[in-house]
Amino acid sequence: MNACPYPTRLRDSLPVPDARAADAARSRQRRLTKPAGSLGALEGLAVRIAALQARERPSAQRVHVTVFAADHGVAVEGVSAFPQSVTAQMIDNFAAGGAAIAVLARELGARLEVVDLGTVSPRVRREPGVIVRHLGPGTANLAREAAMSASQLAQALCAGAEAAHRAAEQRADLFVGGEMGIANTTAATALACALLDLPASAVAGPGTGLDAAGVARKTAVIDRALALHGACADDPLDTLRRLGGFEIAALAGAYIACAQRRIPSVVDGFIASVAALCALRISPLLSPWLICSHRSAEPGHSAVLRALDAQPLLDLGLRLGEGSGAALAIPLLRAACALHSQMATFDEAGVATA
Amino acid sequence: MNACPYPTRLRDSLPVPDARAADAARSRQRRLTKPAGSLGALEGLAVRIAALQARERPSAQRVHVTVFAADHGVAVEGVSAFPQSVTAQMIDNFAAGGAAIAVLARELGARLEVVDLGTVSPRVRREPGVIVRHLGPGTANLAREAAMSASQLAQALCAGAEAAHRAAEQRADLFVGGEMGIANTTAATALACALLDLPASAVAGPGTGLDAAGVARKTAVIDRALALHGACADDPLDTLRRLGGFEIAALAGAYIACAQRRIPSVVDGFIASVAALCALRISPLLSPWLICSHRSAEPGHSAVLRALDAQPLLDLGLRLGEGSGAALAIPLLRAACALHSQMATFDEAGVATA
Repeated sequence: MNACPYPTRLRDSLPVPDARAADAARSRQRRLTKPAGSLGALEGLAVRIAALQARERPSAQRVHVTVFAADHGVAVEGVSAFPQSVTAQMIDNFAAGGAAIAVLARELGARLEVVDLGTVSPRVRREPGVIVRHLGPGTANLAREAAMSASQLAQALCAGAEAAHRAAEQRADLFVGGEMGIANTTAATALACALLDLPASAVAGPGTGLDAAGVARKTAVIDRALALHGACADDPLDTLRRLGGFEIAALAGAYIACAQRRIPSVVDGFIASVAALCALRISPLLSPWLICSHRSAEPGHSAVLRALDAQPLLDLGLRLGEGSGAALAIPLLRAACALHSQMATFDEAGVATA
Repeated sequence: MNACPYPTRLRDSLPVPDARAADAARSRQRRLTKPAGSLGALEGLAVRIAALQARERPSAQRVHVTVFAADHGVAVEGVSAFPQSVTAQMIDNFAAGGAAIAVLARELGARLEVVDLGTVSPRVRREPGVIVRHLGPGTANLAREAAMSASQLAQALCAGAEAAHRAAEQRADLFVGGEMGIANTTAATALACALLDLPASAVAGPGTGLDAAGVARKTAVIDRALALHGACADDPLDTLRRLGGFEIAALAGAYIACAQRRIPSVVDGFIASVAALCALRISPLLSPWLICSHRSAEPGHSAVLRALDAQPLLDLGLRLGEGSGAALAIPLLRAACALHSQMATFDEAGVATA
């Protein structure tokens, strides 16, 4: 595998939101035919996307959706309700159009790309159209050793940057990143604990559907991993390497690389939010480029959202991942942009003001 | 104006949700390629709409949007931040496509119809395409006399039933009702107080943007009206006649008439929810046919949602009305139906179960 030039650019400075576009958008909002503030969160969203896209009238039409999938060595510790073979099977299901994110991408008129970063089982059906970037048959078991080598981490970040590059080539207004990987709430929980200095018991949850005994086992596995790898929050890249997953690192790389190209990312649930938190620790000016879509049913998500200083748009008890919650929020972003751009002003409509 | 035959049918029995379709939908949900329950509220929504539409795979594609507009005599008490001329001006703005609900209906690919039930000021621009059902130049001042005559109430309910009839003719999957009328949060608040036996201070809020002194004045006006008309919650039609508005009565009539035609209604914010509560008191089996879309910023909305036993989908600080919040929830209903109908099952995709 060739070396990826991207990781050295991770700490490059990011563009800042455009204050002039924000002012123009704010002024336009005040002139639209509605009581000031009556569109609630949608008004601030329109202004925010205007600032990010550096234009008075922003757009959320062109959405680039990438799902990164990979297996996790820690699955052998019995931390998931599903067998590890499901990761490869779901990659085929994404590509064939039967998975939730595939249905939602179609509804949005968005192209879905699937990046296979390495699974334990081979893909039996071998659906075409999957971008293959195998970094190994999943990560190593983070409860016993570092999940990734330095080279694997670099390649995973690079796979994310490549997706950002494709999004930019397609002139995407927004990027949605999804993830799939049996046992990846364990990796994400370990990362959240390390970055937020919390014990596993404060963050761990049922993931895809563990019972209480399963959550207790998962919690113990994560505490063991945290003890093994030590507190390392001061070095977010090394934390990501030791406790993360290929798909989590790819998401982090994609968020940063999208921001470098002025593309806001719509962040999905617990695992994607942990990837966003890793990315934010790597690139501290990333925050405005992350639009958090929803509050997951996974209990640890709230702590991660607080750390991201995020007010998610939806709270529907979702806990699927794949980017599905982010995709579900896209119509709200589109509506915010359409209302902002298409509503008549008081002058245009001949409507009296308050 | 001709007599409307509809009001006598208001207490006709309603169809009940189809238990067999609900069972089939529930069984299908369990077979879809996702952890059970991981789509949160969307799973129950899909099953609910399946039961209402009496088919295993429900649809939210065809949406009929009707905005009812009318003026309110109580506006002379200084209970709104906007002048009364705005009602007629906004009717033109709906018809011309510049209002929020017009933009949202376009985004949804839904036809928007506007029903003018009577305004104080004439429409200056006279945009075509408005359905005119003038019941008078607005209601009488509910702080001094009954808002409507019995005949006006019947005609308003009938205007709602006509909209339901048009929705059924167009084979709508869902009905969205909106309202517009300067001072109509005052009428809706008075209705909520009468139906829920609450003082005005427990429900009244800023509406389109009153300051604290304005809210205090509005509260006093509503308390005066409640004292004048007496407790009358046992007769919801008479309560609606005394304290309501043409557009509020039309919405109530539309919700009931839609349910009679097996069309679920997506209920907007505070005023629409009060209309829904009136309708529920008139027709006690209406409840399953009302899908509450969002929690409004208007403080009294929470009490009304509790009375409707509703878990709204969105909580975005909206307080515009026009049906805008209901329209914003439609993509979630569409997504719930699309996921339910289009996702692959574990068998179809060859994915292992937990």
